[in-house]
Amino acid sequence: MSGTVPAKEDHVDVLIVGAGPAGLMLSTWLSRCGVKTRIVDKRGTKIFNGQADGLQCRTLEIFDSFDFAHRAWRESNHMIEICLWNPDENGRLRRSSRIPDTIPGISRFQQVVLHQGRIERFFLDSMKEHGNLSVERGVLPVSLQFDETKAADFNDYPISVELRTLSDDEATPAQRQQHHKTADGQESTLEDGLFRSNLVADDTDDLIRKTENNRADQTELIKAKFMVGCDGAHSWVRRQAGFKLEGDSTDYIWGVLDIIPITDFPDIRSRCAIHSASEGSVMVIPRENKLVRLYIQLQATEYNKSGSKADRSSITPSIILKSAQRILHPYKLDYTYCDWWTAYQIGQRVGDKFSLQERVFLAGDAVHTHSPKAGQGMNVSMQDTYNLGWKLAHVVKGLSEGSILKTYESERKSIAEQLIAFDHRFSRLFSGRPAKDVMDEEGVSMEEFQKAFEKGNEFASGVAVNYGSSPIIAKEGQVVSKPELATKLDIGKRIPSFKVLNHSDGRPWHLQELLKSNGRWRVIVFPGKLTEPANMQRMQTLGKRLEGQGSFVRRYTPPGQSIDSVIEVLTVHPGPRAGIELLDIPDAFHPYHKDLGWDYWKVFVDEESYHEGYGQAYENYGIDPIRGATVIIRPDQYVSWIGEADDYDEMSKFFSGFMKQQAAGKLSGDGAPRL
Amino acid sequence: MSGTVPAKEDHVDVLIVGAGPAGLMLSTWLSRCGVKTRIVDKRGTKIFNGQADGLQCRTLEIFDSFDFAHRAWRESNHMIEICLWNPDENGRLRRSSRIPDTIPGISRFQQVVLHQGRIERFFLDSMKEHGNLSVERGVLPVSLQFDETKAADFNDYPISVELRTLSDDEATPAQRQQHHKTADGQESTLEDGLFRSNLVADDTDDLIRKTENNRADQTELIKAKFMVGCDGAHSWVRRQAGFKLEGDSTDYIWGVLDIIPITDFPDIRSRCAIHSASEGSVMVIPRENKLVRLYIQLQATEYNKSGSKADRSSITPSIILKSAQRILHPYKLDYTYCDWWTAYQIGQRVGDKFSLQERVFLAGDAVHTHSPKAGQGMNVSMQDTYNLGWKLAHVVKGLSEGSILKTYESERKSIAEQLIAFDHRFSRLFSGRPAKDVMDEEGVSMEEFQKAFEKGNEFASGVAVNYGSSPIIAKEGQVVSKPELATKLDIGKRIPSFKVLNHSDGRPWHLQELLKSNGRWRVIVFPGKLTEPANMQRMQTLGKRLEGQGSFVRRYTPPGQSIDSVIEVLTVHPGPRAGIELLDIPDAFHPYHKDLGWDYWKVFVDEESYHEGYGQAYENYGIDPIRGATVIIRPDQYVSWIGEADDYDEMSKFFSGFMKQQAAGKLSGDGAPRL
Repeated sequence: MSGTVPAKEDHVDVLIVGAGPAGLMLSTWLSRCGVKTRIVDKRGTKIFNGQADGLQCRTLEIFDSFDFAHRAWRESNHMIEICLWNPDENGRLRRSSRIPDTIPGISRFQQVVLHQGRIERFFLDSMKEHGNLSVERGVLPVSLQFDETKAADFNDYPISVELRTLSDDEATPAQRQQHHKTADGQESTLEDGLFRSNLVADDTDDLIRKTENNRADQTELIKAKFMVGCDGAHSWVRRQAGFKLEGDSTDYIWGVLDIIPITDFPDIRSRCAIHSASEGSVMVIPRENKLVRLYIQLQATEYNKSGSKADRSSITPSIILKSAQRILHPYKLDYTYCDWWTAYQIGQRVGDKFSLQERVFLAGDAVHTHSPKAGQGMNVSMQDTYNLGWKLAHVVKGLSEGSILKTYESERKSIAEQLIAFDHRFSRLFSGRPAKDVMDEEGVSMEEFQKAFEKGNEFASGVAVNYGSSPIIAKEGQVVSKPELATKLDIGKRIPSFKVLNHSDGRPWHLQELLKSNGRWRVIVFPGKLTEPANMQRMQTLGKRLEGQGSFVRRYTPPGQSIDSVIEVLTVHPGPRAGIELLDIPDAFHPYHKDLGWDYWKVFVDEESYHEGYGQAYENYGIDPIRGATVIIRPDQYVSWIGEADDYDEMSKFFSGFMKQQAAGKLSGDGAPRL
Repeated sequence: MSGTVPAKEDHVDVLIVGAGPAGLMLSTWLSRCGVKTRIVDKRGTKIFNGQADGLQCRTLEIFDSFDFAHRAWRESNHMIEICLWNPDENGRLRRSSRIPDTIPGISRFQQVVLHQGRIERFFLDSMKEHGNLSVERGVLPVSLQFDETKAADFNDYPISVELRTLSDDEATPAQRQQHHKTADGQESTLEDGLFRSNLVADDTDDLIRKTENNRADQTELIKAKFMVGCDGAHSWVRRQAGFKLEGDSTDYIWGVLDIIPITDFPDIRSRCAIHSASEGSVMVIPRENKLVRLYIQLQATEYNKSGSKADRSSITPSIILKSAQRILHPYKLDYTYCDWWTAYQIGQRVGDKFSLQERVFLAGDAVHTHSPKAGQGMNVSMQDTYNLGWKLAHVVKGLSEGSILKTYESERKSIAEQLIAFDHRFSRLFSGRPAKDVMDEEGVSMEEFQKAFEKGNEFASGVAVNYGSSPIIAKEGQVVSKPELATKLDIGKRIPSFKVLNHSDGRPWHLQELLKSNGRWRVIVFPGKLTEPANMQRMQTLGKRLEGQGSFVRRYTPPGQSIDSVIEVLTVHPGPRAGIELLDIPDAFHPYHKDLGWDYWKVFVDEESYHEGYGQAYENYGIDPIRGATVIIRPDQYVSWIGEADDYDEMSKFFSGFMKQQAAGKLSGDGAPRL
C-alpha cells in the first residue's frame, strides 16, 4: 500500500482498532491496569442514539466492577416482564403468558435497556477519571506488518501499523436526510436509518483510499506488542490477519423503530414477543425516555417490489410502521416522535480464528454476528474484551506467562458458537408463522417458543458462561480442585454474589463489590467458625505461610507495590462478629502498613445485617461452616480453584502454573508495627 | 456606609448570601424550579476538607429527591453501629454495648459520613446540570435597604443590596501554615485548623472595610423580592435585620482530628462514645478514605495554661492527640497522616426571629448553633432551606399566596429549639465524667447516657420532624383530615417510603422516588381494590371531576404547562396488577398527551415484585384495601391531608386555602385522542 513516510513513530503495549463497546471495554480495562494503550476509530464521533441497547445482568456486574453500573442502572429502562402474544383459536391477538424477563435470583442486577451512546459515554468518562487515555477519532490503520520472528518474546514489538488521520468531513460522512410522513400525515425529517445497517456496504476501503495523499503529519507508525481488532463485522484487522467469518445470511429482513408510541396495546411497556397469524412478528423493547423499540418483521412484498433481493430505497419508517400496524391489529399504533430507525438482514456467522499467534486478537462483531433481538451482540462483545483485558495487562506487566493468552480463544470461541446456535434457534422460532394447531407442521408451536424463550433467558443473562479447564481454570490437570467443598459454586463460572458484612464496621457488601476490576487475583478464605480452636490454629498456620518471605503472595508481587496488589487475600468467616476482634485474626489476613495501620477492609463475616438482610454466603456457596474452603477467583471474577481452607501448597502450585516470579525487595508499607 | 456608586444594577427574585450547605440547598431548589436567583459567598473557594460530615437519613432522602443521593451513598462511609465504651468497676475502659447507628426501618437510607466539600460539590454539579446558576465567590453584601411600603406586594422588590467583589487575595486569606510533630517524632505541615473555628473572630467586617475603595465595576446594586441569609453563625444578614442569636457558650473546649489512625482500639471503624474515668471523652466517627474523625475533649489545663479563657496558640494537633491517647488508655493511638484538625467551644444559641416580614429570611447557622458531635448542624441547616425553597418558588411564580411563607418560621423555629434542647442534654451527658457508682451524683450515669443516645438517634435521623397545623398542614381548622384512613401516616411528617410497582411495566419503585423535588404537589389516590365495582365507579366519578375544566388540578396550572406540572395525581391500587389493564382506569389518572400518548408513570400497584420483595404499602400506611384513602403530599414530601379516596370537595377546599387561580387556557398536550 502506498502513501507518505510517516513523520511520527510510537511504541505501545496495545493498539486497539475500533471504539465501540468492545474496544472501549478493553481500553477501560487496560487503562485501569496502567498499560500503555492507544485506541483509534475511523468515525469522527461516537454514537448518539439507536444501535444496541440491552444490558444483561452479567454486563451490569462487570460495569459495577468498574464502578459505573449505577449510572446504567439509574438511566436505563428496567425490563421486568416478558409478555407473549399470539393468535387465539379465532386468529385474534391475545396475551398468552407473562414471565419474568430476568430469572429471579440469578444476579443482583436485572436486564435493562439503554442506548449504546450512553454506554460508550460511561466508558469514556471512566477512562478520563482513571487515567489519560482517550479515543483518537477519525483515525484508521492502513497497513499492518507482523514480524513472526519477534512473536515469541513478549517484550518485543512484532506489530507495525501505519495510522492515518481523516479530515473532519471524511470522518463524519453526512447522513442522507429523509423527509417522511408519519401515519397521521405530518411531515418530519429523520436521518437515514440505514447508515450503519448491514444492508449497506462497508466504507473502510473507501476511507483508506481517501487518505492516500495524506500529509506526513497526518500519518504515524505504531509499533505494538499487541493489537486488538474491535472493528466490527467488516473488520479490517480480521482481513489483514487472513481470518474469516463463517456462516450465512437468512432472507428475513427486519425493520427497527425507536418511537414514543401512541397506542392502546396494553403491554407496550413490557418486553413482548408478538406473533400475528399471518402478518409476521414484532418484538417490543420498552426503553428509556418514554421510547419503545419495535423490531418489526417485514414481508418480502414490502422491500422486494422490484424483484431484486432487498430494495433499500423502499424501506422507510412509514413502511415499517405500516407492517407493525398490521401485525398488532386490532390494537392501534402511531407516533409523532421517532428517535431512530433502521432495517437489517439477519446474518449468523462466527470467526474461524480469534487470534494470530496471541499477538493480534479479534473481538466482538469481528468474530460473531447475528440477530439483535435477544440483546446479545453488545454484551457478548464487551465480555470478549473483558476476558482479554486482564490477561493482556498481566503479560505486558510481566506478572504472567504469555501462555495465558491462549485461553482467550479457547474460552471465547465456544461462547460465540453457543451464541450463534442460540440465535439460529431463536430466529427461526421468532420469524416463523405460529402454528394453527398441532397438525400444522410448518408453523411454530407457541409452547415450543415459550420454552425456548425461558431457556434462552438463562443463556441471555450472561451468567451461565462456563469456561473450560486450563492453567487458569483448575478443573482437571496438574492442580485439581475439590468442588465438594463449595457445592453450589461452579469452577469456570463467575462467582455469584451474596451479602457479607465487614468485620470491623458491620457494613453489608455484596461479595462481588469486593472484587473490583483492578487486575488482582483473589484468594478468598472461608475459614469456618473461628470460635473452633482448630480453625483458629489453621488460620495461624496459613497466615504464617502467606506472610513468609517466599510465599506465593510475595513472590509474584513486584517490589515497592502493596502486598495485595497482585494477589489479594480476603476472608469470610461465619461469625459471630461480636465474638471475635479483628486483631485476634492473624495479620496476614488484614495486613499492617507502617503509615496506614491495619487494613480494615479484608475480613468479612457471614451474618445478618441491621438494615439489608442476611446473605447466607456459606449456605449459598455450599460451604460447610466448620470445615470451610478457600476459593481462588480470577481478576474477571471467574472461579479458578476450590480447595481446603488452609491448602497453601495447592494454592501455590496453582499460581506457579502461569505466574512469573518477581525480583525480591521490600513491599510498600513493610515495616515493624509502631505500637 | 460609604462607597462608590454601583455601575450595575440587577433585579432578582431571590438573593442568597452564603454558599455553604444551607445556601446551596436553596439555590438548587430555586434553580430546579426556574426562579431567578443569585447566590454570593465572601470566600473565594469552596471547602475542600474537614468541616461537617454526617448525613442523616432524612438528608439522604432529600438528596435523592434531587437525584444525587447515590453519589453521597457511594462515596461516604456508612456508619452501621455505635459502640459505647466506659470504665468498668476497676476503671479500665471496656465496650459496654453495641447498638445500631440508624434505627432499623425508619428510612430506606442510613446515616453516612462524607466531608462537607463533597456535599457542596454535589449541589454545584446539580445546579450546573439543571440550569445556569453558579455561585459568585469573593462577593459580599455591604449594605441592605428594606422598603416596608413594598413588602405587601409580592411582585415588588422591597430589598436593595449593594454587592462588592473582593480581590482574589482578600477572598482567599492565607491560612497560617503550622509545623508540628506527630507522636512518633516526624515533622509535618498542616494548615491552621482554627481558621474557620468559633474560637476565632469573624472577619466579615474587615472584608467589608477592605472593599470601601472598590472601583465601580466591582460593585453592583441588587433589587430583590426576597433575600435569604445563609451566612453562618456571625450572619451579616441577621445583624442587618436586627435579629439576635439567644443562648450561651459552655466552657468545654473540644479538639477535632481527621486522621488515618494507627491503633489497637478494636472499634476504630465504628461510631464510638468513649467516656474515660477521669481524662474526658472521645467520640469516634469513622469516615471515607480510611479516615477517622475524633472529637476529643480537652482539659482546661491543656489550653488554659496562661489562665486566660482559651489560649488558642496552645492548641495544636499534637496536644489534641495526647488528650486522645490519655482517654483511650490502655489502647494505643497514633497517626502518620492528618487530613484536617480544629478546635471549638460549644455554644448553644437559637435565633429570636427567622424572617423580616417574610421577605428577608435566615437559615442554618445564622439561626442555630450548637455542638457538632451529633452530626446535626449541616443537616438541620439544609433542611431549613429545603423547607423554604419550594414556598419561595411558588410565591415567586404566582402559584401560591404569600401567606404560605409564614410557615417557614412556624415550622423551622420549633425544630431549632428542639435541636438546641437535644444538644444541651447530649453535651452535658457526653462532656461529663462517668459516675463511679449509683451514689456518685456529680457523675453521668452510663445507663442514662445510653438511653439518651438511643432516643437521640430518632431525633437525629431527621425523620421525626412533625410540622404543626397551618394552611398547608391540615391537622385542624377549615380543612380537617381523616387520619383514621391511614393509621400509620402522620400528618405533618414526611411520608415514609415503601416499594410499589409501576402498573404498566411491573418495575418496583420506592414511593419517595416518585416524589422528586420539582415543585409539584402530589395527590396520591389509594383507591382500594379496583376489582370492586363500587371502587371503580368511585374512580370514574373522581376522574371526571379531576378532568373537568374548573377542576383544582387545571385551575392552578398556568396555560401551556402540562397537567401534572403543579398538582400531580398518582394512584396506588392494591392489585392484582394482572387483573386490570391501565386503560381500564380513567384517563385522569394517566393523562393522554396528543404527541406522547398515555402517561405510563402515574399508576402503581401494591404487589410483590419479582426481584425486590414486597413493599406492602397499604398495610404499612395503615390504609384499608377496600375503603382506600387519598393523601396530599407537599412538594417537600410532608403529608398535608388525609381523606376519603374520592373526597374531591375537601381536596379542592384544601388547595383553595393558599393556591392562586391561573388564567384559563389550553394545557400542553391537550387534544382529542388520535386513535
